[in-house]
Parts: sequence; structure tokens; C-alpha cells
Amino acid sequence: MHPDAVQRVLGVLLMVFSVTMLPPAFLALAAADGVASAFFLTFLLLIALGAVLWLPVRRSRRELRTRDGFLVVALFWIVLGAAGAMPLVLQTVAPFSLVDAFFESVSGLTTTGATAIIGIDDLPISIRYYRQQLQWLGGMGIIVLAVAILPMLGIGGMQLYRAELPGPVKDAKLTPRIAETAKALWNIYLGLTIACALAYWLAGMSVFDAISHAFTTVATGGFSTYDASLGHFDSALIEMIAVFFMLISALNYSLHFMVWRRKSIEPLRRDPEVLTFLAVVITVSVLVMGGLFVYEAAHGLPRADSWNHAIFQVVSFATTTGYTTANYSLWPAFLPVLLLIVAVVGGCANSTSGGLKVVRVLLLWRQGGREIIRLIHPQAQLPVKIGHRPVNERVIDAVWGFFAAYVVLFVLLMLTLLAMGLDQVTAFSAVASGLANLGPALGDVATNFASVDDGPKLVMCVAMIMGRLEIFTLLVLFTPAFWRR
Amino acid sequence: MHPDAVQRVLGVLLMVFSVTMLPPAFLALAAADGVASAFFLTFLLLIALGAVLWLPVRRSRRELRTRDGFLVVALFWIVLGAAGAMPLVLQTVAPFSLVDAFFESVSGLTTTGATAIIGIDDLPISIRYYRQQLQWLGGMGIIVLAVAILPMLGIGGMQLYRAELPGPVKDAKLTPRIAETAKALWNIYLGLTIACALAYWLAGMSVFDAISHAFTTVATGGFSTYDASLGHFDSALIEMIAVFFMLISALNYSLHFMVWRRKSIEPLRRDPEVLTFLAVVITVSVLVMGGLFVYEAAHGLPRADSWNHAIFQVVSFATTTGYTTANYSLWPAFLPVLLLIVAVVGGCANSTSGGLKVVRVLLLWRQGGREIIRLIHPQAQLPVKIGHRPVNERVIDAVWGFFAAYVVLFVLLMLTLLAMGLDQVTAFSAVASGLANLGPALGDVATNFASVDDGPKLVMCVAMIMGRLEIFTLLVLFTPAFWRR
Ligand SMILES: [K+]
Ligand SMILES: [K+]
Repeated sequence: MHPDAVQRVLGVLLMVFSVTMLPPAFLALAAADGVASAFFLTFLLLIALGAVLWLPVRRSRRELRTRDGFLVVALFWIVLGAAGAMPLVLQTVAPFSLVDAFFESVSGLTTTGATAIIGIDDLPISIRYYRQQLQWLGGMGIIVLAVAILPMLGIGGMQLYRAELPGPVKDAKLTPRIAETAKALWNIYLGLTIACALAYWLAGMSVFDAISHAFTTVATGGFSTYDASLGHFDSALIEMIAVFFMLISALNYSLHFMVWRRKSIEPLRRDPEVLTFLAVVITVSVLVMGGLFVYEAAHGLPRADSWNHAIFQVVSFATTTGYTTANYSLWPAFLPVLLLIVAVVGGCANSTSGGLKVVRVLLLWRQGGREIIRLIHPQAQLPVKIGHRPVNERVIDAVWGFFAAYVVLFVLLMLTLLAMGLDQVTAFSAVASGLANLGPALGDVATNFASVDDGPKLVMCVAMIMGRLEIFTLLVLFTPAFWRR
Repeated sequence: MHPDAVQRVLGVLLMVFSVTMLPPAFLALAAADGVASAFFLTFLLLIALGAVLWLPVRRSRRELRTRDGFLVVALFWIVLGAAGAMPLVLQTVAPFSLVDAFFESVSGLTTTGATAIIGIDDLPISIRYYRQQLQWLGGMGIIVLAVAILPMLGIGGMQLYRAELPGPVKDAKLTPRIAETAKALWNIYLGLTIACALAYWLAGMSVFDAISHAFTTVATGGFSTYDASLGHFDSALIEMIAVFFMLISALNYSLHFMVWRRKSIEPLRRDPEVLTFLAVVITVSVLVMGGLFVYEAAHGLPRADSWNHAIFQVVSFATTTGYTTANYSLWPAFLPVLLLIVAVVGGCANSTSGGLKVVRVLLLWRQGGREIIRLIHPQAQLPVKIGHRPVNERVIDAVWGFFAAYVVLFVLLMLTLLAMGLDQVTAFSAVASGLANLGPALGDVATNFASVDDGPKLVMCVAMIMGRLEIFTLLVLFTPAFWRR
């Protein structure tokens, strides 16, 4: 541990983050919505706090080392979660409780997209913008976390991707590596955001809505400037644009990087994880369409835009974006639970999407198959392969560890919510949604978390942060072995 | 595959099973309850069917080989499940539909103890006895399955116990081995049953009730001759006797064998799985007591026998017996879900209890801990240990495979029940209960399955058999590799 280095990074982080208060501040000024002073005050407080942390250690030569990565990453979401809540607390136009503000900020930065607000349409425009921007910034952080840092830390088997990183490999020093990787990936992220915003605008959104929703589409975040989410626009064209960009955003950014460098989509077309992910999306879409047809026929309901809603809702869940159009929670119980499970599987590794990640599920599936063959041929040597490459047993161990931790954490959080008085459907779906960084759930929290108390909201914050940090990043910090030496 | 040997074993099995129709047949005669002819007819049909299978191959010299074990074990529960339903279908005093009879028979033989009957108290006495005996016979089958066969097949990491088997080791030939092991274990099983029946009788049960409930206590089955289950007797003494024998029955029978041979309980006292199991039972009992106290205080309820109900209910679930006294499904939602989770963890390996089994959960827990340490010390060599013995990596792989198959099967069965129209709480709890061979669930099926259709009942039969066969025994049969050669 190099406390100096961690403190320096944290100081820089806060100073950089403080600057992100300026766009909503100026928007608030322009719209005279009464929130400008809160954003400017937050800007000043954060830049001051960052400077206080940074100044004493600015000349320290200590570099961040691999092990410090766990602490920096964990602090990133916890500290910025608190910092992001500040403007909401400091303003008085639409009062937020401390817990509600923290919940909204964590939900934003982790790109979960669960909200405790009813009446988003009526909020001051700068706050409506600010929530969207939080998710976009969270997405930027996740890409660096997922692509540059987790593989180096070896969290949940993600050392699988160690060799694929763009940029030079220097195992001991994190900083230069991360900076280079981040730049390349953020360019792609920015490019996708601009393309998505343009498409939304051409499809009929206002400039404000187009930018706001592009932010949360490429971040697979799911916040909207309307209570009705993307359903507000009631446009099949807009939904299909969202489907396209959600899918792109849930794919591996290392592959996007290769596609961009080689000017060829071959890397995507050959990737076993991408192909599996698309196969899941297509299969589940067909299932959901079929389920809706049967349901509508059985109940003599008029045929709604089933194909359209089915595809949109499946992609929204599979990418863990969590936009909604149809009132999916009123569909027959089979379908929403299926959607939740698809979200728990999640998108591809090295993307902004949440959940277990397709590559992990694929690995576990392959090993399950191997176990069956081993029962019949106990002597056979059978490596587990992804594509044509055999996977290191250490990676498989780590993935199993991750899976088990996920299940245990799921059960503990669900029991906690039940003990706080939530019903079983609400507790189960809230935890599934929070850990997978999805957003919408079922039961009392199908569309928002306004009806639950502070306790469950804080539990959800833990779920969202744990999910985003792939559990082990945080667990490691609670072991004596981490702090020793 | 040696079809002759499999056919011979099946023939013998049916002939032996046919004899078990005689005790209820004579009971029916004595009580003149009108069911005697159904039992005698079943006896004749099964002995004839068994003979037809056995006679043509009786001189075959082919021995059962390890691989045939998968098929024999799977057929055991499926064929006997059907055979056990016959007397219920053939009698007309208390008519059963085909599906209800099969459900009851499978639930009995797998020692699950879920029932589709309301009004057990009013059934003909021979049927009330027959259900109990089914569970006791199922328990006998499971002990042989768990102790002698699964370790040899290597299902779900159970090769862990290969070295511990009583009796001589001849890997290729199953038959002599199983016969010897079975005899030793059945003596213990029989001894426990007699002791339990005596204790119940001394505590005030009638002879009929004492034997009937001893059958389902040592089998960790949970069928009762009353709708109100063990709650019918409303006796703390009887409940504590049940607690004692349920706990004993959920411990490893290989250890019971050693205890019996060495005349010392050291083997039990040193076993890490037994110690973990007891620690879980004590911890959860304290949690449930606390939960009930808080609940009763908060709602101004009169203090019920909370400590008593808490311990009984926790042991009943942890051992996957599934007796009920208090109306646990009306406790605050946190508690029943906690109980279900304890049941999913299950009892010890090599016992009649169901669930994942404590040793597997312990192994996964240890490996989870190793993964955390590996993140901090990537170069360290860290074997996973149970007690002081390092566990073979192949065993750990197999346990992970089992765990993943359990989760996948859980999700698939739950989605199937949801698609059939059950609500989420019912579907979730029914699958948890069926796969763990527990019995009681929540929601619409908290006490019995009378209210659900044939479809969900058959799904439950699949769950119960899959749970009992530790999934892989059946999965293997669906692979082409098994049938090749
Ligand atoms: K989301
Ligand atoms: K049971």
C-alpha cells in the first residue's frame, strides 16, 4: 500500500469530477431554474477538497501499484457517489433527502438507473440533465475499470483479458497504462455517444432529449428525463435506434478498439462471447414474443406492438440498460422473471453493462459440460475452451469464486430486504436488479424506489456498488491480508 | 453398457418392492378399510412384471459395471415411482388421479414429503400407513445410493468419500460391494427407526403413530398421518424427540458406521461437515428465535412457544425433513425464506437428507476464500482443505459443476412453473423445496399441492427426482457419449 499515491489519485479525481458540475451549472443559469448556485457551490467544494488532498502529496514519487488498485477502484464509486449527491442536497427547488440524493447519485454513477423520484418530468431542467450526465460519467469510469484495471487485478477471472489490453503492458505501474488505455476507449465511447445523439435527434427527439438519452444509452444506464422512460416518445423508430446502440454498448470495448484500429468488424464477428450474447438476445426475444402472443390470444386482448416491445424490452434487460416502454411488470409473471434472469447474465465483459457477464456464464457452462463427460470418461484430459483457446484453470477457479460470491451476496441482501419488511417478489427482484446494475425490478419497485424506506434504499446502494465492483474488489478490502505489510 | 445386467437388477428390484405391498395389504385386511385388494393386486402385478424381466436373463453372467450404475439408479426412482403409485390408483375408497398418485409416490420415495392430499386424517388407515412406509423404503434406497453408488460414480464431487466406504473396494464390480455396504448401513437405519419409534411411543404416541412417524423421521421424509403434521400432537416432548432423530439422520452414515464399529462418537465429533452443519443449525435457530421475539413484540402478539417452534422448524428444514408445527408460512417473510435457504444447503453428504449438502457448500466457501487470498498473493500455492486434508482439484471442479447445474435447473424449473401460471413466491419456493427434497414451500403450496394443476405437479416430480439423483445421474443419460460404444 502506498497511501500517498492513493491520496494523490483521489485528489485529482475529485478535482476532475468538480469540473463536471459546470455544464449543469451553466444550463441552470441559462434556464434560470434556481439550481445554479447549488452546482457552482458543489464545484467549489469539490475542487477545494480535491486540492486539499492533492497538494500535500503532489511531489510524492510513489507510483500506484497493483494492490492499490483495489482501494482506488472501491473509493472511486463510494467517494464520487457521495460527491455526486451534493448538488441534489444543496439545492432547494426540488428537495432531496440525504439518502435519496445518495441513492440517485450511486444509481447514476454505477449506471444502474434505479430512481427514487416520481415526477422527473417536472424537475428543474438542470437536474434532469445532471442525472443523465452522471450515468455517462459513470460509464466512462466503468470502461476504464473493466478494460484496464480489473484484468490487472484478476477479479472474477478477468485476467482472461490481460493480454488483450490496448496499450503497453507494465504490470507494476498502473498509472501510465490506464491513461493510455482510457484515452483510446473514451474516444470510442464519445464517438458512439455522438452517433447515438444524432440518430435520436434525426428520429424526432429535441436536442436536449437526444443528448440526455444518448448519454444513458451508451452507458447502458437507463436513466431518462421522463417518468415514462423511453416509452414517453412512443416511437418504434426511436426504440430501434436505442436497441442498436444498447447492443453495441454491451459488447466488449477491447473488440471495439480492434475494430476501430483494423477498420474491420472481424474481431466482433469471431468473438465467442459476442456470438453467444447475440444468440441469447435472439432466443429470448422469440420466447418473449411467443409468450406475449399466447397471453394476448388467451385473454382476448387487442394485439399490441408485441414484436416491437418484446425486442426492445429484451435488449434493454440483456444489456442491463433498463429502459422500459411497455408496462412489462404487468406481463404474465413468467416474462418479467425471464427478463430479470437475462439481466443477471448480463452483457459482455469489458463493457458498461452489468450482470455476471456472458463470458463467465459461457465458461461455467463449458465446465459443466466437461463434468458430465468426465463422469463417463474419468481418465480423459479435457481442457475448457473459449473459441479455440484452452482457458487456464486459475481463470476458471476465479470465475467460480465470483459466481459463488454473487449467489451468497444475493441471498444475504435479499434476506436483509425481507427483514426490513419488503415482500418476497420485491426483495428478490430489487436485489437481482441492483447487483446486475439494471434498474427496474418488480413488485413495489417495478418502476421506481419511491415507496420504500431509507433502509432498503441504502441496501440497494450496497448492491449497486458491489455489483459494479464485481464484489471481490470490495471484499478484498475487508481481509486482514490486504492491509498487512 | 450391459443391458442384461441392468434388466436383471430391475427385475429383482421389482420383485423385492412387490413384497413391500404385503404389510399395508394385511393392515387393510385387519382394518377392513376396503383397500386390501388393491395392495394384493399390486403385489401380484409387480412380482409378475419383475419375474418377466428377470427370468430371461437370470443365468447371464454379466456383472453390473460402474457406468451401468447411472442407469440403474435413475431407473430405481422412476420405475419404483410408477410402481408405488399403483395401489393408490387401483383402490376406489379414496380415489386418486394418475398424476396425484404418481406425485404422492415420487414424493414418498424421494423422501420429499410434499403432498397433494387434503384430509389425510380421513384416509383409509392402510393408505395412511403406506405413504409412511414409502418414505422409509425411499430412505433405505438413498442410503445405498449416497454411500455406496454416488461416490463410485463421482457425481457432484462425491468421489471425496470413495475411500471411506465400509466394505471391500472392487471398483469394476458394483454388486457384491453394494450388497455388503447396504447390509451394514441398513442395520443402523433399522436401529435408529426402532429407537425413534420407541421414544415416540413413550412420549405418548399410539403404536401406529409412533411407527409411522419414526419411518418418516429417520428417512428425513416428513410425511405424516395427519394434515397438521407433527403439530397434531401439540407436544414439546415429541417435537424434541423429532429434533434429536432428525439431526442424527441428517449426519453422514459412513460416520455412523464408524461410530458403531469403534463404539465411540469421536468420528462424528471430529468431522468438519458435521460441525459445520450443527453450527448452521444453532446460528439459524438463534436468528429465527430473535426474529420471532421481535415480531411478536412489534405486533403486540402473545408470546407463543417461540424457542420451541424455532428450534423444531429450523431442524426440520435444515435436515430437509419438512415436518411443520407452527404455521411458519405466516411468519414474517424473512423467516420462511431463511428456512428455505437453510434447506437448500441441506444436511450432510451420505445421509437421507437433501439439498446441496453441507460439505459441498463448505468446499465452495473455502474456495471462495482462497480466491480472495489469491487476489492479494497471486503467486501463492493454496490448496483447499476440509479438516486438515487438501481436497483434489477434480473434486472441487465436480462440486462447482454440480452447483452450477443446480442453479440452472432451479431457474429452468421456476420459469416453467411461472409459465404454467403459478405466482412468483409459489414457483420459487416450490422449486427450492422440490429440488432439496424438503416438502413444504410457500405461497399457494405452503402446506400442500392440492391447489395446483397436473402440469406443475409433474414439474415437481421432475424436481424431486432430479434433486434425489443429484442431477448429474440423470443428465449423463441424456448425453450421446453415455450410449456410445
Ligand atoms: K442500467
Ligand atoms: K423431506
